[in-house]
Amino acid sequence: MLETFFSPKSVAIIGASKDASKLGNVVLRNAIEGGYKGRLYPINPKADEILGYKAYPSVQALPEVPDLAVIVIPYPHVPAAVEDCGKKGVPAVVIISAGFREAGYEGMNRELEVLKIAKRYNVRIIGPNCLGVIDCFTPLNVTFAAGTPPSGPIDFMSQSGALGVAILDWAMASAQIGFSKFVSLGNKADVSEIDLLKAWADDPKSRVILAYSEGLPNGQEFIRVAREVSRKKPIIMVKSGVTQAGSRAVSSHTGSLAGSEQAYRAAFRQAGVLRAETLQELFDYALAFAYQPLLAGDRIAIVTNAGGPGILCTDALERKGLQLARFEPTTTKALQDFLPDAASANNPVDVLGDALSDRYAYALEKVALDPNVDGIIAIVTPQAMTDVHETGRVIGHCSRMIQERGLNKPLIACLMGEFKMKPAIEMLASEYGVPNYPFPERAAHALAAMRDYRALRDAPELRVERFEVDNARVRQIIQKVRAEGRVAIGDAESREIMTAYRLRIPQAKLAANADEAVAIASEIGYPVVLKIASPNILHKTDVGGVKVGLNSASDVRDAFELIVYRAQRYVPNATIWGCLVQEMIPKGTEILVGMNRDPQFGPLVTFGLGGIYVEALKDVTFRIAPFDRLAAQEMLSEIRAHALLDGIRGQPPADKEAIIETLLRISQLVTDFPEIVEMDINPLMVYEQGRGAIALDARLVLSAKT
Amino acid sequence: MLETFFSPKSVAIIGASKDASKLGNVVLRNAIEGGYKGRLYPINPKADEILGYKAYPSVQALPEVPDLAVIVIPYPHVPAAVEDCGKKGVPAVVIISAGFREAGYEGMNRELEVLKIAKRYNVRIIGPNCLGVIDCFTPLNVTFAAGTPPSGPIDFMSQSGALGVAILDWAMASAQIGFSKFVSLGNKADVSEIDLLKAWADDPKSRVILAYSEGLPNGQEFIRVAREVSRKKPIIMVKSGVTQAGSRAVSSHTGSLAGSEQAYRAAFRQAGVLRAETLQELFDYALAFAYQPLLAGDRIAIVTNAGGPGILCTDALERKGLQLARFEPTTTKALQDFLPDAASANNPVDVLGDALSDRYAYALEKVALDPNVDGIIAIVTPQAMTDVHETGRVIGHCSRMIQERGLNKPLIACLMGEFKMKPAIEMLASEYGVPNYPFPERAAHALAAMRDYRALRDAPELRVERFEVDNARVRQIIQKVRAEGRVAIGDAESREIMTAYRLRIPQAKLAANADEAVAIASEIGYPVVLKIASPNILHKTDVGGVKVGLNSASDVRDAFELIVYRAQRYVPNATIWGCLVQEMIPKGTEILVGMNRDPQFGPLVTFGLGGIYVEALKDVTFRIAPFDRLAAQEMLSEIRAHALLDGIRGQPPADKEAIIETLLRISQLVTDFPEIVEMDINPLMVYEQGRGAIALDARLVLSAKT
Repeated sequence: MLETFFSPKSVAIIGASKDASKLGNVVLRNAIEGGYKGRLYPINPKADEILGYKAYPSVQALPEVPDLAVIVIPYPHVPAAVEDCGKKGVPAVVIISAGFREAGYEGMNRELEVLKIAKRYNVRIIGPNCLGVIDCFTPLNVTFAAGTPPSGPIDFMSQSGALGVAILDWAMASAQIGFSKFVSLGNKADVSEIDLLKAWADDPKSRVILAYSEGLPNGQEFIRVAREVSRKKPIIMVKSGVTQAGSRAVSSHTGSLAGSEQAYRAAFRQAGVLRAETLQELFDYALAFAYQPLLAGDRIAIVTNAGGPGILCTDALERKGLQLARFEPTTTKALQDFLPDAASANNPVDVLGDALSDRYAYALEKVALDPNVDGIIAIVTPQAMTDVHETGRVIGHCSRMIQERGLNKPLIACLMGEFKMKPAIEMLASEYGVPNYPFPERAAHALAAMRDYRALRDAPELRVERFEVDNARVRQIIQKVRAEGRVAIGDAESREIMTAYRLRIPQAKLAANADEAVAIASEIGYPVVLKIASPNILHKTDVGGVKVGLNSASDVRDAFELIVYRAQRYVPNATIWGCLVQEMIPKGTEILVGMNRDPQFGPLVTFGLGGIYVEALKDVTFRIAPFDRLAAQEMLSEIRAHALLDGIRGQPPADKEAIIETLLRISQLVTDFPEIVEMDINPLMVYEQGRGAIALDARLVLSAKT
Repeated sequence: MLETFFSPKSVAIIGASKDASKLGNVVLRNAIEGGYKGRLYPINPKADEILGYKAYPSVQALPEVPDLAVIVIPYPHVPAAVEDCGKKGVPAVVIISAGFREAGYEGMNRELEVLKIAKRYNVRIIGPNCLGVIDCFTPLNVTFAAGTPPSGPIDFMSQSGALGVAILDWAMASAQIGFSKFVSLGNKADVSEIDLLKAWADDPKSRVILAYSEGLPNGQEFIRVAREVSRKKPIIMVKSGVTQAGSRAVSSHTGSLAGSEQAYRAAFRQAGVLRAETLQELFDYALAFAYQPLLAGDRIAIVTNAGGPGILCTDALERKGLQLARFEPTTTKALQDFLPDAASANNPVDVLGDALSDRYAYALEKVALDPNVDGIIAIVTPQAMTDVHETGRVIGHCSRMIQERGLNKPLIACLMGEFKMKPAIEMLASEYGVPNYPFPERAAHALAAMRDYRALRDAPELRVERFEVDNARVRQIIQKVRAEGRVAIGDAESREIMTAYRLRIPQAKLAANADEAVAIASEIGYPVVLKIASPNILHKTDVGGVKVGLNSASDVRDAFELIVYRAQRYVPNATIWGCLVQEMIPKGTEILVGMNRDPQFGPLVTFGLGGIYVEALKDVTFRIAPFDRLAAQEMLSEIRAHALLDGIRGQPPADKEAIIETLLRISQLVTDFPEIVEMDINPLMVYEQGRGAIALDARLVLSAKT
């Protein structure tokens, strides 16, 4: 899939030019200087030969069907060029030219036209408005970047071409990082992050996939695909533009809590994608994954020739939830026997400032062989006696020994400094594949990222349960609401939907007048609650439309009349069906369960403790539906106030199972009915273990049209 | 003060050696190669001349009194050498030799001996067990580091010599960073962070002070001195070893919440010290402070030739609470007129991928002159057309223009990449003093650090209030408790202490028997609370020692007997005074105010909402006492649940003034009485605005001895 983009046997460069200042020249030159071994066809009607290659007037005129065409001509001519490629049978086209979606309305239409042509001829498109494509192993470089980066085990896609160039420029100066494939995604008219994830999942040359993205067009599919791919290799992503979006006005609690940042956080977690908060992190993490085996446990050994950096490293590990390994007694003994008295034979192992490479070699080997050690950080400061080069070499040897013995432990270096350190850092990377971090904290964070990826990879497969529910009834209700031109679902309708999805609600009946209300109340049993029933009134308490603790027939009669009078006064044109007479529900732990539809990922389900915990503390957590029982369980433990569910200060534990089931049924409901764009159950009253939960109030909003 | 350490007219190097492998040779060589212009005296009884300098057998034999002596001889000879220096009248000695406190008990005694000698002769000591001292402007380099770093506006002290070496090594390879003074503190036998802060506050050559510290011996004085110095120039500090310490067992709530990490966080804030979480941050921040004017407001302009990095920068700024500047209409208009149509004339200003330096020059000047812009980040990606060098130059010119016009706005660069970028980055730093950050997030964080420092610097001076209290009474109580060999203060005594400091407590009296209890209850008025009164029982509820809501004489009689019976059973040897009969206090907002004495900083006062907020959410904040009203106000707004104090969900606002006054009186109490090592008021029951607060339960613990 997409392989002709990366290892084509022949490439046509449409718009290749003799003029060295033109992009069409840079791309051809990059292809040649990058060492491309297939057949190169410059396409330019005004030239016979370019940079030593025979030029052709058009793709049609080529002696064969090229596997790949790269388009670098002004935008007005791009549609015709794509059509030519289609007719000739070219399967893959990279459009570098700009002047499409990014250039406004006309450009957008031009892009859609190009896409239509491409679909007609089954041509796949990367771009337009991109930097091009590189495969360092083919080798193929059809970009206008300045040069080709070194090859290595990293696949990298970037929605920003400029960011790609910057990274390639950085890689070219560093002995530490190399790429397998690089794609500048541009406008993503056709090929998107999802296609590349699928294509790169089985790239035998890469061990990690990096991505810079500004937005994902198909969030649910992204989650599905990434979840699968991330079990094969880590996906590390920087997502930009995550500050408060919220263009659509929101009327629910959940809506006001759920921004695109929350949606991305939930989605990346569910997709198994490792989120890098900064570009620095992206590349720090990539180095560890690319060149070292995955961290199999949480126990880290530090070997250092200075106390200070060892403490900083320990602090950083502990803050990230990793721990210092406790060595086997034999390891400690061996270290004590070999190292000077003043050295520390415990973790962090301090081989002292006057250590030569022999102490490092000995200590590293001992800790690497210790079964209680899962990963190693070797810290070296350039002190007066330090033989930087030899010390670097023994670190490299240790890494090689670990690999040869199949010990499967990452070893990363922290050679601090540059003037004396640089040659050793480069040797370590290029000869031994040991990445270096200039500061101990960054080394610790890289190992923590490995631990995070391991947890994501090893998480059980998604197992979404399907509950028996009355789907048809909900469809009927929604159709009815739609037919009446409403988007808000009334209280009685919400109650029916909850019942259809088997969620417990208070006993209640609609009373059209005060007499009916009294009759229903005596049937349910006192005390009762009265609530205004109107399709036009969503926030019932705001209009004085709720009265609680009604203990007698006369209480009910008075309340009915007062509520209806108030509703008519505050919302003059409201349709009023009467009042809902409802069982008075005992106090329990108040929970909020809600959903808000995210433009990129769809149904974003919220969970939190109700009341002040939601309002003042914003102590909530999110998942994209559909999710499974494990995810629901995680949600319960993710909120800061989770201890309250376990029962503290003499309270019994809350019925967590009932909360989990509510979350799962809501996940099913909002997945089954994409028309529901917002919903809140607030509160879900939860009782002690085994006693269940009751959805006291549910509000649902439909999208304006299908 | 300490000036002879940095600009001595003559230096004796005790232990100077001809052997190039000895530290005594390295130090002398560094002094010579570092360009020291004063008189250098190698001291070595076995040599006539070393490295071209006449050697002397001892300090005594010198033809003058040197301003500075550096000791690099084996530790057994150090005390005698210091004595020699003292006799000769040398004012300043750097002891590089190791084998002191860090080497165990004997070493510690040796260090104390050296210190005693030094005090006797009024000699100031840096070290022992250190790397030495550098002043890049004198110039003076008496370290065994490999070479001398470039000069620049940064003072740097490090408790870890090795870390210092690493940093110097890094500086030597970078054109970006230079030092005024560097001190390796070593064991800090005499000169500490505090002395250097005082000495460097007025160093005209430095603009920022950096410190790496593993612990501060005199926390309160550090706060006092740093607070003063930080008004003159920023102090940025990395503190390591901050994971859970807590060696002393703690019995109070506050104790279990307050670790050394919390103490440092509070102390740095009160001291005006900027905390860097990592070494990377330390130097990222230092660059901005050292070379650019301070950020005077929060409004940042971004000029970029690529959208992606611009978005990443925007995200990072907003996450840190900075904002994108909104340009004057004339600025936007001017940008629109000059830049191509596809460019963005709004912030971030996107000059497009094909921008040459002219567009940067124009855009940078316009935004620099805009009065709504407080700081500028110039982002450059190395695209095909980009003239990296010229673009770097116009950024430099803009920085110079800003300085010449006295606009006082920081301009920092983010030239992304290295291969093509490095020469431009070095030119920008060395010729124009514009620091470069390789990634946009790090540039944004550096400006945020400037904003943080500005807030610290501009905070009002500390104004600690003194309340009228009955100090003498508290002293009496403490003396009595001490005299009885107790550390826990009983309930009745605690009540007296609260009263002496004018904190409201419930009406209460001690009843020795049930009859007295009934009498007191009828005097106070029902309902009442009974609590066991025993100096040996601190956690009264744990032994069933509290009964609330007693409404009648028989209730009181039953409760008295039950409580006393239970107390005797659970704590067999307890002295039991009877029961405290206490006014039943109405429910309010429960607050925790507590104090735990930190080994480094002293009284660490805690504030939080009581109950679950403290127990489950750990939603608390800290200050080192004594603090002022402003700090107390800040504490109230720092807890996550602060909105609860303002009244939400129909609750009236709480009496914040009463909480603030309680915090201030407790601050005074624990400052007045260092004997109090722990205390909790839990709960302080706070009522609505104007209604005050009542300390319902107070527990105090004294230190074991004076």
